[in-house]
Amino acid sequence: MDARTLTEQVLKRCELLSHCTDVPGQVHRLFLSSATRAAHRYLTDWMKEAGLEVRVDPIGNVRGIKRSKNPQARTFLVASHIDTVPNAGKYDGTLGVLMGIALAGLFRAEDLQHHLEIVAFSEEEGVRFQQPFLGSSVLAGTFQSDWLKKKDFENQSLSETLFKWDLDQNRIPIEAFEPRELLGYLEIHIEQGPVLADQNLPVGVVSGIVGQSRLNLTFLGQAGHAGTTPMPLRKDALTGAAEFICWTEEYALSNPGLVATVGKVEVRPNTSNVIPEQVTVSLDVRHLSDEKRVTAVQELLHQAHMICQKRNLGLQHEFPLDQQAVICEDRFMEALLDACKFCGLPEFTLPSGAGHDAMVLAKVTDIAMLFVRSPNAISHHPSETVEPEDVEAALKASGHFLSQILR
Amino acid sequence: MDARTLTEQVLKRCELLSHCTDVPGQVHRLFLSSATRAAHRYLTDWMKEAGLEVRVDPIGNVRGIKRSKNPQARTFLVASHIDTVPNAGKYDGTLGVLMGIALAGLFRAEDLQHHLEIVAFSEEEGVRFQQPFLGSSVLAGTFQSDWLKKKDFENQSLSETLFKWDLDQNRIPIEAFEPRELLGYLEIHIEQGPVLADQNLPVGVVSGIVGQSRLNLTFLGQAGHAGTTPMPLRKDALTGAAEFICWTEEYALSNPGLVATVGKVEVRPNTSNVIPEQVTVSLDVRHLSDEKRVTAVQELLHQAHMICQKRNLGLQHEFPLDQQAVICEDRFMEALLDACKFCGLPEFTLPSGAGHDAMVLAKVTDIAMLFVRSPNAISHHPSETVEPEDVEAALKASGHFLSQILR
Repeated sequence: MDARTLTEQVLKRCELLSHCTDVPGQVHRLFLSSATRAAHRYLTDWMKEAGLEVRVDPIGNVRGIKRSKNPQARTFLVASHIDTVPNAGKYDGTLGVLMGIALAGLFRAEDLQHHLEIVAFSEEEGVRFQQPFLGSSVLAGTFQSDWLKKKDFENQSLSETLFKWDLDQNRIPIEAFEPRELLGYLEIHIEQGPVLADQNLPVGVVSGIVGQSRLNLTFLGQAGHAGTTPMPLRKDALTGAAEFICWTEEYALSNPGLVATVGKVEVRPNTSNVIPEQVTVSLDVRHLSDEKRVTAVQELLHQAHMICQKRNLGLQHEFPLDQQAVICEDRFMEALLDACKFCGLPEFTLPSGAGHDAMVLAKVTDIAMLFVRSPNAISHHPSETVEPEDVEAALKASGHFLSQILR
Repeated sequence: MDARTLTEQVLKRCELLSHCTDVPGQVHRLFLSSATRAAHRYLTDWMKEAGLEVRVDPIGNVRGIKRSKNPQARTFLVASHIDTVPNAGKYDGTLGVLMGIALAGLFRAEDLQHHLEIVAFSEEEGVRFQQPFLGSSVLAGTFQSDWLKKKDFENQSLSETLFKWDLDQNRIPIEAFEPRELLGYLEIHIEQGPVLADQNLPVGVVSGIVGQSRLNLTFLGQAGHAGTTPMPLRKDALTGAAEFICWTEEYALSNPGLVATVGKVEVRPNTSNVIPEQVTVSLDVRHLSDEKRVTAVQELLHQAHMICQKRNLGLQHEFPLDQQAVICEDRFMEALLDACKFCGLPEFTLPSGAGHDAMVLAKVTDIAMLFVRSPNAISHHPSETVEPEDVEAALKASGHFLSQILR
C-alpha cells in the first residue's frame, strides 16, 4: 500500500466533491439536492474503479459492494455521509466515505472472507428535513415511515423528493439489515473537537459515542425597577441563573469525562433597567457512561432547586432529549489499537462527543470508529481542514484493521 | 384642612384623568396626544377652582400660578407630569400634579409671602419623541433647540407637533427661570419601588436622586461543539459573564445604597449545542454618592477584566450613560421631616432610584421630593395603585411644609 499516494488521491477527491455544491463558492450540499447528482457521478466512478458493484439505494445512499465467495460471509460496512451543513467544510463525512473507497481499492485483487460494503450515506446532518440520520436509519431498520411526510424549506415532502429522484420508497423496509447479516461497521471521521490536536496525535480510536441529556430550565423571579429596588428586596431570575451556570461549569470540571454546556439564554424582559423576571437556559449534558450522565443531570437539577429555594425563585424544567451512550465494540477497539501500534502510531482512545451514523448502526451490529485530528477543532465551517500526514496515518491503521478482519 | 375629603377629591381626579386616554381601556396618554386636550380642560378647570391663574406654556405644560403681593416674592414650584408610558397606571406623575392643585386650593384665601406655581409637565417619560423631560427642561433652561427636529412614530417632528397645538416654539427660551426668580421646587410622586412598602411607611422624604452609570460589557470567547470540547479546553464567554453577574450582585449587596443590575444579556450564537463565543451584558449601577458609584463601576470593570484574564477571554466595554446624582436641599428635607413629625408620621428618608423632573429643576433651584408608598412596588403598569391613607398623609405633610415655606 502506497499510503502517501492514496492520501493525495483521497484529499484530491475531497476537493473535487467540495465543488459539487448548491451554493457556488461554498460547500453546501443538502440531502438529494441537485449538487448531490454530481457527487453521485463521482462516487459511482470511484467505487467502480475500486472494484465495487455500485447502486443507489431507496433513500439515496450510494453503496459499493465487494462480494466474498465464502458462503458464510457476512457484510462489513465502512461508511460515512456525503451531505453537509450549509457553508460547510470539505471533510466532515466526505473524508470517511472517500477513505472507505480508497481502502476497498486496496483489497480489489483479493478474495476476502467477508463482503465489504462502502456506503456514502445520503443524509446525516438533518438540515433539509430537520431529521438527521435518514441514510443510516434505513440500513439499521429504524427508518420511520411518517418521516416521509416531513417537508423541506420549499414545502416539498421527503416522499415527493424520493419520487423525483426515481427512488422507490416502498423498498425502504427491504434495505434493513438483519444483525446476523452483518460482521461490523467502521466509520472514519474527523474528530470535530480539540482533543487530538491538544494531545498532538494524528488519530484516535473512539471508545463510544456519549449519551446526551438536553434540558431547558426556567428561573422565575420578579421584575422590578433597576433603580428603585434595593438589592435585598430583589428576586432576580438572572442572578439565580448565573449562579447555576457557574455551578454547572464547576461540577463538570470536577467530573472527568463529563461535559455540561449552557449554550442558550433567554431573558425577559431583557431590558437594561429592569430586573429580569424570567430566564430560560438550555443545558446539554454528555458522558460516555449513562449512569454518570444521569447522576450529573440529577445533581445539577437538585442544585438549581437549591439555588431557587435560597433565592425565593420559582423553577420549571423540561427534558427535550435523553439519548443513551453507544459503546464501541471491545474487540474492534483492540484491533484498531493493535493496528495503530503495528503502524507505529500512538495508541489513544477518546469518546465521541458528537453523534455519528455509527450510533444508528449500533442498533444492528458492532461498531468501530477512528477519528482523524481536527486542526483547531474547527468543523461545520469553511476553514475545516485535515493534515495529510494524519489522513495517511488513518489510512494505514484502518487498512491494517480491515486486513485483520476481512482476510 | 379636611385631608380626607381632599384625598377623595385627588383620587377621584386621578380616576377622571385616567379616562383621558389615546387607547380606550388603557391609561395611555402620550405627550400632546389628542387625549392630552381633554386632560388640559380638566386641569384648567381644577386649577381655576383652586384660585390659580392658568396658562399653557410653549412646550404644553399647564401652569397655574397664585401670585404674592410681596415685591420680593420668589416662585415656589410644585409640579409633576401628566404624560404616561403606554398602558400605564393612574398615579405616576398625575398624583403629584393633582396633589399640587389640591394644596394650592388650601392657600386660596391667603396672601402668601411668595408666588406658588403648580405645573403639570407635558412630557417626562420620553415615549413620543424618545426624549424625556421636555416639559421641565423648558423651565430649567436646558431645552435644546435640536430636539425640535426629533420625530415621533408617525414621523411628525416635535416642531410640527407644537405648531399644530398653536404653541409658539420661539417663546421656549423666554420660559427659562433664572435661579434668583425661584424659591424652590417640590415634587410629590409615588415611590415606584418597594422600600416604603417593605418598611410599612405611608410616605418618605427623598434625600436625592441617585446618579446612574450604564455600561455594556462584551465577553469574547471561542465557539465550540458542546459535545466534543472537553471542559478544560473551553473558552466559554457565557460562564465568564455568569461569574461576572454573580460577582456584581455580591458586590452590590455588600455596599449599602448601591444597586447594580444586569438586565440584558445577548448570547452568540445562542444555540443549545454550541459553546457561546460572545456574550454582551448591560450593567446599570446607581448610588446617591457619585464617588461611591464611580468606585463601584471601576471595581466591577476591574473584576470583569480579572475574570476574563483568568479565563483567557477578551473583554470590550462601552459607557452609554454617566449621569450624576442630584441631592435634595437640606433645609427642605429638614422642613419635610419636621412636617412629618408635626403630622404624627414617621420621619423616614430614602433616595430615589429613578429619574424625575425634580432632577432637571435642580439645575436652577433647590429641590425637595416626597414619596408616597407604592403597594407591591408596581408602577408603569395598569395595576399601579396608592392607598388613600398614604395620600392623606402626604397631603398633610406637604401642606404643613408649604405653609412653613410660603407664609
